[in-house]
Amino acid sequence: MPSTATAPRTSFQTHPSRYQHWRLACQGEVATLTMAVQAGAAERPGYELKLNSYDLAVDVELADAVQRLVFEHPEVRCVVVTGALERVFCAGANIGMLATSSHAFKVNFCKFTNETRLYLEDASAGGGKRFLAALNGTASGGGYELALACDRILLVDDRSSAVSFPELPLLGVLPGTGGLTRVSDKRKVRKDRADVFASVAEGIKGKRAVEWNLVDAIAPLSKWKEEVARHALELAAQSEKRAAGTSTGKGVELAPIVCERDDERWKYGHVEVAFEREARTARLTLRLPPSAGPKDAAAAHAAGGSWWLFQLFRELDDALLNLRFHEPEIGLVLVRVEGDPAVALAADAVLVAAQAKGSDAWFAREVARYVKRVLKRVENTAKSFYAVADAGTAFAGTFLELFLACDRTYVLKDDGAQVALGVSGVHAGLYPMANGLTRLGTRFLASPAAAQAVLARAGEILDAATADELGLATFAPDAIDWDDELRLAIEERASFSPDALTGMEQNVRPAGPETMETKIFGRLSAWQNWIFQRPNAVGEKGALKCYGTPLRPEFDYRRT
Amino acid sequence: MPSTATAPRTSFQTHPSRYQHWRLACQGEVATLTMAVQAGAAERPGYELKLNSYDLAVDVELADAVQRLVFEHPEVRCVVVTGALERVFCAGANIGMLATSSHAFKVNFCKFTNETRLYLEDASAGGGKRFLAALNGTASGGGYELALACDRILLVDDRSSAVSFPELPLLGVLPGTGGLTRVSDKRKVRKDRADVFASVAEGIKGKRAVEWNLVDAIAPLSKWKEEVARHALELAAQSEKRAAGTSTGKGVELAPIVCERDDERWKYGHVEVAFEREARTARLTLRLPPSAGPKDAAAAHAAGGSWWLFQLFRELDDALLNLRFHEPEIGLVLVRVEGDPAVALAADAVLVAAQAKGSDAWFAREVARYVKRVLKRVENTAKSFYAVADAGTAFAGTFLELFLACDRTYVLKDDGAQVALGVSGVHAGLYPMANGLTRLGTRFLASPAAAQAVLARAGEILDAATADELGLATFAPDAIDWDDELRLAIEERASFSPDALTGMEQNVRPAGPETMETKIFGRLSAWQNWIFQRPNAVGEKGALKCYGTPLRPEFDYRRT
Repeated sequence: MPSTATAPRTSFQTHPSRYQHWRLACQGEVATLTMAVQAGAAERPGYELKLNSYDLAVDVELADAVQRLVFEHPEVRCVVVTGALERVFCAGANIGMLATSSHAFKVNFCKFTNETRLYLEDASAGGGKRFLAALNGTASGGGYELALACDRILLVDDRSSAVSFPELPLLGVLPGTGGLTRVSDKRKVRKDRADVFASVAEGIKGKRAVEWNLVDAIAPLSKWKEEVARHALELAAQSEKRAAGTSTGKGVELAPIVCERDDERWKYGHVEVAFEREARTARLTLRLPPSAGPKDAAAAHAAGGSWWLFQLFRELDDALLNLRFHEPEIGLVLVRVEGDPAVALAADAVLVAAQAKGSDAWFAREVARYVKRVLKRVENTAKSFYAVADAGTAFAGTFLELFLACDRTYVLKDDGAQVALGVSGVHAGLYPMANGLTRLGTRFLASPAAAQAVLARAGEILDAATADELGLATFAPDAIDWDDELRLAIEERASFSPDALTGMEQNVRPAGPETMETKIFGRLSAWQNWIFQRPNAVGEKGALKCYGTPLRPEFDYRRT
Repeated sequence: MPSTATAPRTSFQTHPSRYQHWRLACQGEVATLTMAVQAGAAERPGYELKLNSYDLAVDVELADAVQRLVFEHPEVRCVVVTGALERVFCAGANIGMLATSSHAFKVNFCKFTNETRLYLEDASAGGGKRFLAALNGTASGGGYELALACDRILLVDDRSSAVSFPELPLLGVLPGTGGLTRVSDKRKVRKDRADVFASVAEGIKGKRAVEWNLVDAIAPLSKWKEEVARHALELAAQSEKRAAGTSTGKGVELAPIVCERDDERWKYGHVEVAFEREARTARLTLRLPPSAGPKDAAAAHAAGGSWWLFQLFRELDDALLNLRFHEPEIGLVLVRVEGDPAVALAADAVLVAAQAKGSDAWFAREVARYVKRVLKRVENTAKSFYAVADAGTAFAGTFLELFLACDRTYVLKDDGAQVALGVSGVHAGLYPMANGLTRLGTRFLASPAAAQAVLARAGEILDAATADELGLATFAPDAIDWDDELRLAIEERASFSPDALTGMEQNVRPAGPETMETKIFGRLSAWQNWIFQRPNAVGEKGALKCYGTPLRPEFDYRRT
């Protein structure tokens, strides 16, 4: 990847051949993902990754491994997540790293690690891979939170290994990588037990860990290997793909994402980000290819990583992560999709056909799941998004979903301008939001009929006036007002308090029901972010700052 | 009320005859609650309550008015909430007050005002009173949030009056008194419109306010009185009580709550709070009367405000509010209930019988709704609660619910000790938690059979061993271990970061589904609390600090 002086510090692209902290081994239906963090290979100076503790780079490798398992190893039915150290599976996020990170970095770090764990659960829920946490030693904090994201947790019974949340007693913060939420809502641990568990730094082990449902089973060291293998095969046998008896076909290799970056512009193959730094704005342009490409799932599978739709969303995902971590001052992203809307609708037809019961089009299905995840990444990014549908744009199908994911939509309503929107079958449920509803269902929470009216246009290209009538435009100015209205909206957004915008968006975007996923980002993360601002955690005498030093934390004991 | 040098600054007790900021007038089925805030009567020096802006004392009067309407005016079917000023209904929470308040006070202020608005909604949802917001002028921020808690919003159409959320553009904070949540989830405003609405300081008026569902109707000044009366009668006609055709009987006067306070102890009639300040702990003792009192709903109605159960919970509510606002250093509350469990079960029988369809026992039903609200106030208090069931205690029925509301329950399992718990019909659904589930249902989320096993004991007094077998005890030590175990648990709790405890409890207490209510406290409030810590809001150049001064806010524009 070309790199300049302004290239981001963290790259979100890696490859198993370059992993420093994980080992991925596939053997038939069972893969083993072994955490073996190199203590001396921290992402930046100032801390050591002892005891399989992790920093962002470690988690980037984990996210990459999950993605490779999904696309490159479709034959895998069970993934065993285990550790290479003795007595310790994983000590969680590195405290030295957290203590020396900015508030914004901590927040983004937690968001990314949360997304990775949800990705792992998604690969299980719909992707037919079961995850077994084979805890060969103590799993603390983020280490246990990773286990909680797995389908089954097996803990070694060696009289010392435990699962634990030491965050509250030792660090004055929360088990915020989904920990409290999954204990309460996924494993349904009684609230008084969850309270006790979160207070006991040394954790809970053995039979009590099973009784409290903190783990599913324990196994002695003497039978560890056999028990891990037995549970892995049991889980593999449960996978839906296996049950459906469909063949998987060969994996699809993920080629590196190429991007030319300079301070003004990031140029990917289909995606471009152009910065207007004075306006704290980025222009994100997605370009559809001139022709539709693969006509069915088999052709898409054959195209693999070079299928334009897949490549485009992989580029978009990389751009989003880079925007989050490396462009904090950019507060507003203007989204445009250029090209022929028919090209987008043709690709959607492949995705929708692949959903048919009994279809063995696993690759197209996984691409749809991937797109779903990137769309959620948009909605989970602490920046404002305006969709800009002006001349030459084509927010059609999957790209209409991106349009709906934006905070506002501006549609140029002018007879002379070529403004195309388009409806496909993907809106009916292919890309559920984190709240479990479709984007149309969420937008039209008050009037399901309005959502149905849009769905009824599936296959159609809509002009601006029709899109506006259907309720898809926030504003639809004509050519006379367009420039001024958009300019004012951009200037206004860039002038507001960035914190108030983040808070507002986090409350307005996920209307309707809550899920474990929205609770993690909306409730748990919000409280963690609050604590990450409090002197009791991050002040000079805060617990997070003092941990690992000779100093004892000093608290202001007033409850808030 | 006796008062000493340590008496709290804010009293949560008032009476219509002493209101400074509201006027309550009842005329048959329609009551009018008029906001007429005395600008010069702020709770403390440093700000003026101009334009019907409010501080805590104003909201204490509102909460009192809602409670008086419920108990003293059962005949009222519709409450018109309107303002006494011209052109302005209410400008929201007073900015000068917010800008000069501590973080902890802001958080507690918002929590109380949120609870008051939810109380108003509860009086509508189950209490048969409909609320009409008759916005005779602009409703800004908290003013519009109050309107959002009403069943119907009528806005004067005078070319200038609007509804607005100026918090984000002017103050750099959120419409945090349920505002964003109710716009999204109650009124189901499209998220892009909610985004626009929250960005436009001057608000939205007239037909667009109706079209966006921000208000239900508009009416010109010339027809204002008739339209308000027409809507009020329409709403009154919809009330369930009216539909059920049940008579209401006479209202029940609420006598003042009497409390003797000194620095070591608050003594109410049935409730006592004793402080162990070095341990940052309070001992909250509830005492059941020696005999059961009213045997049926009619007798309870005749006893009215002096029915012991009602009085006890009114005292408990007052104690909770005083603990929140005036005892910030108290982090842990040890809860004991003393007396004869049969007395509690007898009162529960009255409450349960009053739920029968067609029953006209409105008073007993309202008492149950009141108890429900106080129990939720416990769970919404930023302090830890341990239930202590030792010799002489009687956590039975309604008091078992309080036991279940606690974070942990300690039960002394010793043959010699008189430890009684008891089960009644109230657990089956009389006191739903904010998450919509029963406390047993929430506790046993993983095993509904365990909840059923407790319900099956309705009417029974349980000893400690049985309660423990049924899963009601977090810990059930014997007499030998009891003192040490409890002492260690208390010391440990008092040593933890108070912020981490608040965050942990906010995530563990409401397991399971989310509701609008839990979203307000768990999501909206958490983000607001985060923003209330951010320099962009509360720093020297933050928007909240600069508002109303000649200074312009200066933001750190990095998005987090």
